[in-house]
Amino acid sequence: MSLAELTTRAGEWLSSEGPLHDVVISSRARLARNLGSVPFLSKCGEPLQREIETRLRREIRAANIAERMFYVDVAGAGELDRQLLVERHLISRQHADAQHPRGVAVSQDESVALMVNEEDHVRMQVLRSGLRLREAVAEISRIDDLLEARLDYAFHGRYGYLTACPTNVGTGLRVSVMLHLPALKMTGELEKVLRAARDMRLAIRGLYGEGTEASGDFFQVSNQTTLGRSEEQIVDEFLEQMVPKVIDYERRARQGLLKQRATGLDDKVFRSLALLRSARTMGSEETMYLLSLVRLGVNLERIRDVSIKTINELFLLTQPAHLQRIHRREMDGRERAEARAAFIRQRLHAP
Amino acid sequence: MSLAELTTRAGEWLSSEGPLHDVVISSRARLARNLGSVPFLSKCGEPLQREIETRLRREIRAANIAERMFYVDVAGAGELDRQLLVERHLISRQHADAQHPRGVAVSQDESVALMVNEEDHVRMQVLRSGLRLREAVAEISRIDDLLEARLDYAFHGRYGYLTACPTNVGTGLRVSVMLHLPALKMTGELEKVLRAARDMRLAIRGLYGEGTEASGDFFQVSNQTTLGRSEEQIVDEFLEQMVPKVIDYERRARQGLLKQRATGLDDKVFRSLALLRSARTMGSEETMYLLSLVRLGVNLERIRDVSIKTINELFLLTQPAHLQRIHRREMDGRERAEARAAFIRQRLHAP
Repeated sequence: MSLAELTTRAGEWLSSEGPLHDVVISSRARLARNLGSVPFLSKCGEPLQREIETRLRREIRAANIAERMFYVDVAGAGELDRQLLVERHLISRQHADAQHPRGVAVSQDESVALMVNEEDHVRMQVLRSGLRLREAVAEISRIDDLLEARLDYAFHGRYGYLTACPTNVGTGLRVSVMLHLPALKMTGELEKVLRAARDMRLAIRGLYGEGTEASGDFFQVSNQTTLGRSEEQIVDEFLEQMVPKVIDYERRARQGLLKQRATGLDDKVFRSLALLRSARTMGSEETMYLLSLVRLGVNLERIRDVSIKTINELFLLTQPAHLQRIHRREMDGRERAEARAAFIRQRLHAP
Repeated sequence: MSLAELTTRAGEWLSSEGPLHDVVISSRARLARNLGSVPFLSKCGEPLQREIETRLRREIRAANIAERMFYVDVAGAGELDRQLLVERHLISRQHADAQHPRGVAVSQDESVALMVNEEDHVRMQVLRSGLRLREAVAEISRIDDLLEARLDYAFHGRYGYLTACPTNVGTGLRVSVMLHLPALKMTGELEKVLRAARDMRLAIRGLYGEGTEASGDFFQVSNQTTLGRSEEQIVDEFLEQMVPKVIDYERRARQGLLKQRATGLDDKVFRSLALLRSARTMGSEETMYLLSLVRLGVNLERIRDVSIKTINELFLLTQPAHLQRIHRREMDGRERAEARAAFIRQRLHAP
């Protein structure tokens, strides 16, 4: 398995096959763990960081977490490959940009990714398409157990698992869903819903997590605190009370658009598709924005000659590192914008 | 001949068949004349205005200017019909909005229009497609002679023909061309060229003459003064020195775009066509803007499946009064925007 292979397809989480996938792109569980026998990463010198990386890489392989996992030495990878991993949500931007010894282990279908030496010694992630949070949490617990059998985790009788950042202390678990909320945006209700979500102690972020802007109406919604609540509490609260509400708002907004503003909706949706099929140069931001509207159009069966699978692949493959990997050369912004437009036209079978 | 028939086609001046029609949409000659036996219009009471209107209507008919001319009693026409005449450049907005007795005589192909009781007693206009100003002036002189044989024009031995507005005194002749300058706009050179044109004593106006904004990169360029110069001087100066320069600038700009910015040009042109073929609602301004770019694309042979004739018809028929005439009912702005988009999609054979 090589990184180059990744540029030809999307991971399982973008397959749009899970439950409620019209609104929920994907579900994510993340677990932060640290070794108890060594200091937190920020307190280690490079030799010790290297030792930790080597040890974790070996133990992850030995734990036999998934078939055909592959490991990327992020410190040794080129800038384009690191960017590629970020675009695929397999590592964080921070992990890509750091300087110390570090890596990531990824399962064949990209549903599992274990960052070694990110903020914590191990950051595990399970990503699944649609609303499948319980499944993701069960999978991450299984992986956690496999690793715990081989590693000495930093654990405190009262606080639980210790983590580099205090907000993760406790279960170390964060769950999040990636939501597509174009109708709420269109009806002007989005701000209200996001405010309500924040009141419910949910954190709302952009497509690439902390510090990123929401683009193309995609929002990552996650639980805010982990301390003092069990894993089950976190997932239940999130799944049974919060996320369903947001999904419901979005679905009502979509039906409202269909009933009361069908022409305006079609106008936006078909203009977007037409631009994607005709542009000769297109930036990332505009691509996101237009694909988002086309996705809405496909979900509402206004557009019938494009599949969600194609849209999802375009979201992924039109990003800068992917484009450059596909063309096997470095490109400046202008070249990328032209290559992006050409790629989209070809994939959408522009006339 | 009725006004309703006009909504199915464009006048000769929009046929895009004259010389240099890639840049020059049309050529116009206009002559202002007043009767010597009665005061200027603004000095007449309504009974006298009515008398003048009746007399001129009769004399114009008797002068046998063109085959199958028709006369519209503008004072008696509905608002929509008056607006229709403005959209077709057959009467001025002022003439449409006035309150006194007035009318317009129009030739079958709309190349000749004689407004009765506009600012002057008679305002004659000859419109021709492409750069055919000498032809237009010859035709307007012929019409002027036919009328002068039957009417007593206000004429002063020293000043020439007297007109309501002093800027028209002398020959009473104004010539203008409608230019399409999208490439100059795109390259950012437009302001420079327009400034140079103003320095050459040319007046630059929008699509509907005095006081209107240029929309869709169309500019009406006319001579500023008529006093002290003969008809021939006016036309020669305009045709041989001024207009060719502007045409040359625009053509150079187009070739420059093709050579140096072909992708950016195609991007604009194909996006515009795609939007016209896909929108479900579209305002007048946007329509003008997009049609202008598509016209450029067709002229430069980037777009090959749309004819200039279709573009020109769309410019005309998508205007508010035309749309309502075609649909045989009054429509508010929103209905018009939807009807406009549907009409354009149908005419452009959207997939």
